[in-house]
Amino acid sequence: MAQWIKDNVDISNDLEGMTQALAWAAKGLYTTSPNPHIGCVIVRDGQIIGAGVTQQAGSDHAEIQALKDAQARGHDVRGATAYVTLEPCNHHGRTPPCSDALVRAGLGRVVAAMEDPNPLVAGQGMAKLQANGIETSVGLLAHEAYELNIGFFSRMTRGLPWVRMKTAASLDGMTALHNGVSQWITGPEARADGHHWRARACAILTGIGTVKADDPQLNVRAVETPRQPRRIVVDSKLDIDLSAKILAGGGTWIAAAVRQPEKEAALAAAGHEVILLPNAAGKVALPELMRELGRRQINELHVEAGGKLNGSLIREGCVDELLVYLAPALIGDAQGMFALPALTDLSQKKRLKFHEVQQIGEDLRILARFTH
Amino acid sequence: MAQWIKDNVDISNDLEGMTQALAWAAKGLYTTSPNPHIGCVIVRDGQIIGAGVTQQAGSDHAEIQALKDAQARGHDVRGATAYVTLEPCNHHGRTPPCSDALVRAGLGRVVAAMEDPNPLVAGQGMAKLQANGIETSVGLLAHEAYELNIGFFSRMTRGLPWVRMKTAASLDGMTALHNGVSQWITGPEARADGHHWRARACAILTGIGTVKADDPQLNVRAVETPRQPRRIVVDSKLDIDLSAKILAGGGTWIAAAVRQPEKEAALAAAGHEVILLPNAAGKVALPELMRELGRRQINELHVEAGGKLNGSLIREGCVDELLVYLAPALIGDAQGMFALPALTDLSQKKRLKFHEVQQIGEDLRILARFTH
Repeated sequence: MAQWIKDNVDISNDLEGMTQALAWAAKGLYTTSPNPHIGCVIVRDGQIIGAGVTQQAGSDHAEIQALKDAQARGHDVRGATAYVTLEPCNHHGRTPPCSDALVRAGLGRVVAAMEDPNPLVAGQGMAKLQANGIETSVGLLAHEAYELNIGFFSRMTRGLPWVRMKTAASLDGMTALHNGVSQWITGPEARADGHHWRARACAILTGIGTVKADDPQLNVRAVETPRQPRRIVVDSKLDIDLSAKILAGGGTWIAAAVRQPEKEAALAAAGHEVILLPNAAGKVALPELMRELGRRQINELHVEAGGKLNGSLIREGCVDELLVYLAPALIGDAQGMFALPALTDLSQKKRLKFHEVQQIGEDLRILARFTH
Repeated sequence: MAQWIKDNVDISNDLEGMTQALAWAAKGLYTTSPNPHIGCVIVRDGQIIGAGVTQQAGSDHAEIQALKDAQARGHDVRGATAYVTLEPCNHHGRTPPCSDALVRAGLGRVVAAMEDPNPLVAGQGMAKLQANGIETSVGLLAHEAYELNIGFFSRMTRGLPWVRMKTAASLDGMTALHNGVSQWITGPEARADGHHWRARACAILTGIGTVKADDPQLNVRAVETPRQPRRIVVDSKLDIDLSAKILAGGGTWIAAAVRQPEKEAALAAAGHEVILLPNAAGKVALPELMRELGRRQINELHVEAGGKLNGSLIREGCVDELLVYLAPALIGDAQGMFALPALTDLSQKKRLKFHEVQQIGEDLRILARFTH
């Protein structure tokens, strides 16, 4: 989305200003985790005189970046308008409040796309600005700002990551032959597009079945990123082989349901962590795992697993969104997308809402959200 | 599409003229079978002075309708431009050649969207016009004109109907529960949209399995039409019950693989026809049935059948296009869309190309064409 950014663009209205702020926010899509992706542009006389994007935790927020950028370029921001994709913070976290900085800088107007998702502080940043004589406005392109930060908002409001499950299937809903062959159902463009969704996630989750069958790396390769998402394996019996590619480089979390002190020690020595979360059936307690990932600041969780774990996650209500690549092909008798039990009545179906459909290469990309 | 038609529209270029001609052509979508759907508008000084649409076989072609319309409205067509969605015919069929009529009327210019699909006569209509001093042009909005008449062109060039198979499934590719329940997976808008596709078809085909399980009428109800498509049942053993709703009103064709003189007599007495087309396996020879339907002037064949007949038709290469309504829901372990055998290698998959995707109500409508 960086191609949206136009440095010498003429900003003649708020829509154009906020569009540029969103373009700056999108620059942080692969990097700012667990911080949200926030952009800010400062406009004076129709020209952008400063711009910024929220950095990784502990560094400057977008507003401060934009103020510094304007200063570095020799611009006076007094009386200017700031477009920011989220209400400026009004609290001392790892950095001082952005609202204070904007007041001190003498901005004339602040346009925010959304209020802070945390209901305890929502509106306070804008109120501080207003109390200091700055004109404010909230809500422009709120939907776009929300979508860029859907994981952050999910964690702030629910304590849970936004869980996006990716699958690739033929038009008749098949993901693999009975003999296990699944490479490649979709085309190269769809596979590359999938890496974009991996890259924006805080973590990528799969199951031990997929690790054993395909030994995937589950990292980001097809798009450039300075940050690799954390990898997570659901592995109830702690069956994972230490040579599995998903363990390469360390830092993988393994969600298990049994203790295996020796294996755990070996995994820890290689830089991995075992998260023990058994349920009554001796499997990993998936809803509890989601809560734990929320506590661990995972905003967007990207799931690429087999039909069995996919089905369990859906059955247990852990999935927010399906990212389905449909190939223009029929495969026939084969393995389906999700292992879900037979229903006796259609009213028991899992309901979704189509959110977006796009052609990617020769395939369709469908985003559908559960309505639970 | 009739709402496109604007009687007092200002025609300032060929694109607008042809768009109006296509809108007139679309008026015949439900009625002109087995004639193609052809529209013609005559334009003079930027105003439409006459318009017409091809009628049912034996009646006036669109050009003649448009000339008569102009005459009835007191307009002089000499020197005017005619926009017609198919090259004017140059032969004596059931009606005299349109090319002669256009020459006699003194048109100044004729713009056609496409040449005649019959290679034996393609270009002859336009050549006749040119030879008589009329300026001509071919190819504007050819794609749109082709799509409106895809069945007619299929029959003219291949001797086969254009076979469109309709199915409705959940996002995970399921069409019915194991207990047979399938009503309703998709929403009311998608079901109504399905009737539009039925209405434009020359015939609707299903299998005896669907007739026995659901006893469908398979007629057009949700959209208004003065003509009901012919109904066809694939019923190898001539198992159909004379009280089946698909036989109501007579005129149904039953494709069978065995003789049953008594049943055949009863069906004939009720106005139906048995088409005997056995193959070596004692089933209906489906490719031969398609050729027979081509001979019987079926342009577009609309298939609404169960997974088994659907699978057989696909396996035997009889299907040109899938019309898939995908509901935003997961059903899980259930009946799939097409009964196709397991593959040993993904290279054996049936390849398609996505042609069009649209949201209809809460569902997706996907048109995909086989690339065989």
